Amino acid sequence: MKAATFRRDRRIRFSDCDPAGIVFYPQYFVMDNGLVEDWFNDALGVDYAALVTQRRIGLPTVRLEVDFRAVSRFADLVTLSLRLLRLTRRSITLQLDCTGDNGGVRMAMRQVLVATSLQTHAAVEIPADVRTAIERDWPAAPALD
Amino acid sequence: MKAATFRRDRRIRFSDCDPAGIVFYPQYFVMDNGLVEDWFNDALGVDYAALVTQRRIGLPTVRLEVDFRAVSRFADLVTLSLRLLRLTRRSITLQLDCTGDNGGVRMAMRQVLVATSLQTHAAVEIPADVRTAIERDWPAAPALD
Amino acid sequence: MKAATFRRDRRIRFSDCDPAGIVFYPQYFVMDNGLVEDWFNDALGVDYAALVTQRRIGLPTVRLEVDFRAVSRFADLVTLSLRLLRLTRRSITLQLDCTGDNGGVRMAMRQVLVATSLQTHAAVEIPADVRTAIERDWPAAPALD
Amino acid sequence: MKAATFRRDRRIRFSDCDPAGIVFYPQYFVMDNGLVEDWFNDALGVDYAALVTQRRIGLPTVRLEVDFRAVSRFADLVTLSLRLLRLTRRSITLQLDCTGDNGGVRMAMRQVLVATSLQTHAAVEIPADVRTAIERDWPAAPALD
Repeated sequence: MKAATFRRDRRIRFSDCDPAGIVFYPQYFVMDNGLVEDWFNDALGVDYAALVTQRRIGLPTVRLEVDFRAVSRFADLVTLSLRLLRLTRRSITLQLDCTGDNGGVRMAMRQVLVATSLQTHAAVEIPADVRTAIERDWPAAPALD
Repeated sequence: MKAATFRRDRRIRFSDCDPAGIVFYPQYFVMDNGLVEDWFNDALGVDYAALVTQRRIGLPTVRLEVDFRAVSRFADLVTLSLRLLRLTRRSITLQLDCTGDNGGVRMAMRQVLVATSLQTHAAVEIPADVRTAIERDWPAAPALD
Repeated sequence: MKAATFRRDRRIRFSDCDPAGIVFYPQYFVMDNGLVEDWFNDALGVDYAALVTQRRIGLPTVRLEVDFRAVSRFADLVTLSLRLLRLTRRSITLQLDCTGDNGGVRMAMRQVLVATSLQTHAAVEIPADVRTAIERDWPAAPALD
Repeated sequence: MKAATFRRDRRIRFSDCDPAGIVFYPQYFVMDNGLVEDWFNDALGVDYAALVTQRRIGLPTVRLEVDFRAVSRFADLVTLSLRLLRLTRRSITLQLDCTGDNGGVRMAMRQVLVATSLQTHAAVEIPADVRTAIERDWPAAPALD
């Protein structure tokens, strides 16, 4: 089965950094939010903005586990990568890493997203087109629930 | 031994929220960063800004585990709270929660901070005044390393 | 006629600052956005969040003129102040200043807000309760349009 | 003399948008800050991060005039553009626009930057390499001071 890692390079901006001159850690989550958008649009072929604004389906985060192993500095070129860990009826678990240009991992995150109705904020099933696109190309551990 | 929870109320701002009308989750980390600042300044009696800008000691995050259990909406009044879980020679582990005005937990985070030199970004010992202030009033599980 | 300046103190946060150790200037606009919220809620007696989320009236900015005269540093205590400059059928022009604890002006901004429908993003008349509250207590130059 | 406009396309992100579903206006300044970085690195051939972190020269904003003419929505593809308006011994005045994919201007900004020492935050002369690079390729109104 084919490898399934989605990657985007990103230059660290002045606006990403704090008075210590390194990435202010909440900014990693802003970057990764953009990576998930790109994964939907460019890899899954699902229009993420239409999902949110027209179909009114959200994908809020319900669980994060993050290790910060090395700092990123202003102007560093980093690579953000995404792999699927698990897909259930209502949730998507992703591994999101940030690596430096020498390949060293700076940030490693396991993130659980759930599909929700943006009317009620209650969990809903992952839409069929999203599920189909993920299952087609993104092998993971089998769904358990 | 006295209870040891540090609390601050916070109104959710328009600028904290996303197109789904709820707190954009990285914003919780910005709020909690401010809570840690306040804990240093107001509870520990250690000038946090002087620690960073003059003494050149940073407290970057090395590990996060976060559960998001309920959404916070624009204009909600939330309470951010902080408890010490563990203190080691070089690290501080905190429990940081965000609760709504009915007491329900919206976000529960376990955060490990390490003291670092802002010259080298290498780990250093927690400064004596910080350690003394924590040990004086903030009971936790005993240090293991 | 009584003086009419709305003020809030604000501590400059680590998260407000950039690698130069001073407030990253877009952050002033985030602070001022909060000041306008507080002015609505606390001075005008109009629930700003309900205006946006239930009544679906927005107050986007259409014009800004800003002078940055001195830097603000991490941990500075600043005062944000708001005065009304002009009220028209559809717009509110505000003077928003940020002063340091010695009274020196760091940032002085003239901001024009217009009322819009959040369905269409087209300009609409300022709601009657907002207009009445402003005209009652916030003298300004007479409306011209 | 050759045309001199520096352009970068940018997709509007979920994280750029507010509960009204449109770009939260301070976010335009974050985008434009990145555009100025790119202009230095890619057009002027001056390493912007080295300028700030090694040479300790900052380019804070001292004056902004901004018109917001139309909203940008989540997922819009916009073009950010930069032209030089004026170069003096210590300041650079830029015209920064954001246009939609139909060419309509959403945001038009005139921004005055001054060179400062990041030790003292006092104004200094624009470094010779920056001046030379600007004068070589970026015609503007003649310097007056």
